[in-house]
Amino acid sequence: MTMKPFEKLVSRLEATRIIDANVNQITRIEDVPLKEAAGRVLAADITAEFNVPPFRRASMDGYAVKAKDSMDASISKPKRLRLVGATHAGESIDISVRDGECIQIATGSPLPKGTDAVVMVEYTRLSGNTVEIMREASLGENVADEGEDIKRGEIVVRASEVLTPGRLGAAAALGLATLKVYAKPRVAIHSTGNEIVPQGGTVKPGQIYDINSYTLTSIAQMSGCIPVWKGLVADNPRELQAAIKEAATCDIEVFSGGSSVGTRDLLAEVVEKLGVVHFHGLRVKPGKPTLFGSVKGKPIFGMPGNPSSCLSNAYVFLIPTLRKIARLPPIEMRKVKAKLSRAIVAGGEREVFYPVRLEKEKAVPLLMKGSNITSLAYANGMIIIPVGTKRLEEGAEVEVLMLP
Amino acid sequence: MTMKPFEKLVSRLEATRIIDANVNQITRIEDVPLKEAAGRVLAADITAEFNVPPFRRASMDGYAVKAKDSMDASISKPKRLRLVGATHAGESIDISVRDGECIQIATGSPLPKGTDAVVMVEYTRLSGNTVEIMREASLGENVADEGEDIKRGEIVVRASEVLTPGRLGAAAALGLATLKVYAKPRVAIHSTGNEIVPQGGTVKPGQIYDINSYTLTSIAQMSGCIPVWKGLVADNPRELQAAIKEAATCDIEVFSGGSSVGTRDLLAEVVEKLGVVHFHGLRVKPGKPTLFGSVKGKPIFGMPGNPSSCLSNAYVFLIPTLRKIARLPPIEMRKVKAKLSRAIVAGGEREVFYPVRLEKEKAVPLLMKGSNITSLAYANGMIIIPVGTKRLEEGAEVEVLMLP
Repeated sequence: MTMKPFEKLVSRLEATRIIDANVNQITRIEDVPLKEAAGRVLAADITAEFNVPPFRRASMDGYAVKAKDSMDASISKPKRLRLVGATHAGESIDISVRDGECIQIATGSPLPKGTDAVVMVEYTRLSGNTVEIMREASLGENVADEGEDIKRGEIVVRASEVLTPGRLGAAAALGLATLKVYAKPRVAIHSTGNEIVPQGGTVKPGQIYDINSYTLTSIAQMSGCIPVWKGLVADNPRELQAAIKEAATCDIEVFSGGSSVGTRDLLAEVVEKLGVVHFHGLRVKPGKPTLFGSVKGKPIFGMPGNPSSCLSNAYVFLIPTLRKIARLPPIEMRKVKAKLSRAIVAGGEREVFYPVRLEKEKAVPLLMKGSNITSLAYANGMIIIPVGTKRLEEGAEVEVLMLP
Repeated sequence: MTMKPFEKLVSRLEATRIIDANVNQITRIEDVPLKEAAGRVLAADITAEFNVPPFRRASMDGYAVKAKDSMDASISKPKRLRLVGATHAGESIDISVRDGECIQIATGSPLPKGTDAVVMVEYTRLSGNTVEIMREASLGENVADEGEDIKRGEIVVRASEVLTPGRLGAAAALGLATLKVYAKPRVAIHSTGNEIVPQGGTVKPGQIYDINSYTLTSIAQMSGCIPVWKGLVADNPRELQAAIKEAATCDIEVFSGGSSVGTRDLLAEVVEKLGVVHFHGLRVKPGKPTLFGSVKGKPIFGMPGNPSSCLSNAYVFLIPTLRKIARLPPIEMRKVKAKLSRAIVAGGEREVFYPVRLEKEKAVPLLMKGSNITSLAYANGMIIIPVGTKRLEEGAEVEVLMLP
């Protein structure tokens, strides 16, 4: 076996299109307790089975009155009403209020029969059994009608919506203890390469510690997925085949290493044999040696072995893919305009994802080397330099994409 | 006991200042496995104990050469070198390369003795034992020096930095299997109110389901904290006192309900008795009945019982507080300029946090009622309307703060 150069490099946009055409949204559904449902994607419409609030209630602390009894009330000319009772939240008072009477009421309490408005306590004065009303109340003021918040039969949260705190609150209002959500996609993570040693082990000459399994694990977690740790895979076809087959229960497989053109970079051959290679080689820098394929309809990424190349492409290609599978909306990376603190040489043949550190209004370019993890460990953003741009000068205005 | 109006309303900025002065960053530290450390806050500098890479290595697949042997090489006039071996990642080859010789090398492999550059496979042609070099290599080209990525003694990630994928990668490069991070703050969550029924229970007349425990739980989770579910607390001083005392093992206590001015809104009295009330009543809408105090140095929030009021203030006050305790940087809410789809009446006496739904370039105001959870369940942003503004007209340009 010999080394084979990449035959054709694929652009970022073309790669994105190819990935999109070969990746499906998850369809597995599971029940989760409401308490653990934050950030999950709802799988079935939530329809209200009753009105919220289920009764007409006070939305302020004060006195339940007949609005007409408060007509023309003012500080100088308060209206005097007779206090005939009090009602608290959680109680159901059985009094019918007559003209000239009122009832002390707490927020959330059912409105007593005969009343149609609540005067806030701030606009009243109590002496003995008499309440002085110092402001006119309009009909229905500080009153929430039955069903005002949610009407029976209304769809409150729709399937495919992400469960924000507010939507969870709406589900809670309906008394739902569990919700149907889409399962989190399972992402098989493999590191390949005979030089890789797991954390905790001892590195011998020529060996290095596993980095990509950890960066890819955190990328999966922040994309609403469950990383499934498949460990290290040696550089031989039999082990790679076994790894691909064993991970078939996952929703996507992500390898790092083994996708370049060295004699031992075997992933392309193995994927070709078991399924189809959609592309192998990207017109991007860093991250050229990237593979994307499918085996039995399951997507497989071969990420570069170089740690910053791997992570850079994880930001650009893997996060959007994982979020699509998880049915989460695309991340909107924050964009900040800044001036380059020094010139950048880009080359011009490939699109460049250049790691920078945004410091005040300056974008400080970091040493860009795919093999150096610190290129991205010290970065908080990247700038995209299009094909054809060979150089950006010091002071040039650039748009920094802030890393999530 | 009677209802007491709020004595003095505190502005948002003043409240923020008061909270900040009475809340401390967490100091508890714990060890977490590297795999689970994403998003955590590092508690101790990570200093490199060895060089990364630990040896001089190839950063491309190709041939390790003496750079001088490739001088003036071109496609039309290639230099011919004799292939004397091959080395793969993970191996340590014991060959000394002489003039006119080269070694096939894979990315990540230690550079063989005598060589000082790597020619990418793309610029070579192999026939038999002869490698044709078609491009001149400069000294050190495609070679990563020992310590080029990380130097022994260098601080790679600093205490108080958030563990991004890149920083986790740097820790992984150093072979660290666990990291010291700050503990996640524990947030005690209580709902008070005799009208509240837990999920799964049956609501009787006058009762409603618990909403705030769920919205506050998700707010705590998205702020890097652990929600600690303390259940429902009845409206009486003894139970409230017991709840405050029992939650003393948490880092902050959050009540909802019980912080208004109704006769049964007892939280202020109980906090006053056990500790100190820093403020009670905010000049904001919704969310006026909000309390902040300390008991034995532990911060206590009394959030409004009305679900949208509670959640609105959770976005404005609680998330920044929880993130401060957790040592996470403030959230930068995305700001989007939009035009109001209809006029808003604000009142003008309090600062207003108005829930809106951003649809294309329009900000659609929702029905703003603190008692309605749908006000925020259907919103994806809010606009802040300053004190003194009574009305915003249809078509007015507003800045929408997108909810995280």
